[in-house]
Amino acid sequence: MYKLFQMQDSGNCYKVRLLLSHLNMPCEMIETDIINGESRTASYLEKNPNGKTPTFQVDETTYLAESTAILYYLAAGTDYFPANDKLLQAQVLQWMAFEQYSHEPYIATSRFWISLLKQPTEYAEQIKEKQPGGYAALDVMEQHLDKNEFFVGGTYTIADIALYAYTHVADEGGFDLKGYPAINSWFQRVVNQPGYIAITEPYRN
Amino acid sequence: MYKLFQMQDSGNCYKVRLLLSHLNMPCEMIETDIINGESRTASYLEKNPNGKTPTFQVDETTYLAESTAILYYLAAGTDYFPANDKLLQAQVLQWMAFEQYSHEPYIATSRFWISLLKQPTEYAEQIKEKQPGGYAALDVMEQHLDKNEFFVGGTYTIADIALYAYTHVADEGGFDLKGYPAINSWFQRVVNQPGYIAITEPYRN
Repeated sequence: MYKLFQMQDSGNCYKVRLLLSHLNMPCEMIETDIINGESRTASYLEKNPNGKTPTFQVDETTYLAESTAILYYLAAGTDYFPANDKLLQAQVLQWMAFEQYSHEPYIATSRFWISLLKQPTEYAEQIKEKQPGGYAALDVMEQHLDKNEFFVGGTYTIADIALYAYTHVADEGGFDLKGYPAINSWFQRVVNQPGYIAITEPYRN
Repeated sequence: MYKLFQMQDSGNCYKVRLLLSHLNMPCEMIETDIINGESRTASYLEKNPNGKTPTFQVDETTYLAESTAILYYLAAGTDYFPANDKLLQAQVLQWMAFEQYSHEPYIATSRFWISLLKQPTEYAEQIKEKQPGGYAALDVMEQHLDKNEFFVGGTYTIADIALYAYTHVADEGGFDLKGYPAINSWFQRVVNQPGYIAITEPYRN
């Protein structure tokens, strides 16, 4: 059976759980507390030398790191990744790269300080510095979702999964989503997908 | 003809030029000075609402952003991306995601402050903060290249192109590569690829 070394609260790990649930795919979850250094032990670094979660165990000796790569591996050949169209495929990767570079480092990092470390006062200055970048990313998403039901090709793909993970908990990072009606409508379309599970829900397959 | 909105000195743009050159593919280069705001004009934001380079023009009305997505679009179906093997394909994406999240924000950002903005003194504190993360990324690369000729599947792919772009100019960001023999040997294997062009070379196809 597949194994996922992951932390329940992490949006990057939730992305993989959400896709696994859509695919109704059995996978053993191995809770890995990154706050207490469990992704930096010698045994973990053998699996993923970059010391981050999620790490996906494909077989006895093969591990895959990076949420983008794991989502691609699981989604290719399913309805969650466009078939036989290089441009649509590249657009999915474009939005996933946008999420990791222009969204996650602002919104997920603020949420980490505020809601996971629970140190909003200690990190007040850094949190303030992350505000403009986070809102800029939300603006780009809003503009796109104002004209599109989903991010790529009119259907729900791993681009939506990747962007949903930290956007729907952006309030936990101090971002107010009231001014983003298109993003809020899209949240509902994601929740309506078959097999949807919440970020707080334990994986049961 | 394809068009690439790009800045010559940017490693993210160089990645695309290098692959285009390997593929011997005609493409018009449109120099876009991000330092002077040319990627933030209304006309540029219509092409790429995220306001970054590179942006690749596929046809009259279609633009692709994010170096990872552009490289995938151009490489899929060629020798530079693994065919018919989801695991190898995912491993290529894994290294490209590693580059964008755990490498570029340290090494490319330091190089930007030191060698493009030419403000090493003004950014001295930030540059110092970027050192541990940059060296950690180089350590992960060195460990992998010590046992592998290239990053994925024993052959030169867009994972190598993505990682080469900012690593081979890491000294311009204040990183000393003397202690990285495997990385230095790999540089030579990249330079030996047919169609290789240097980051300083204008694109002529």
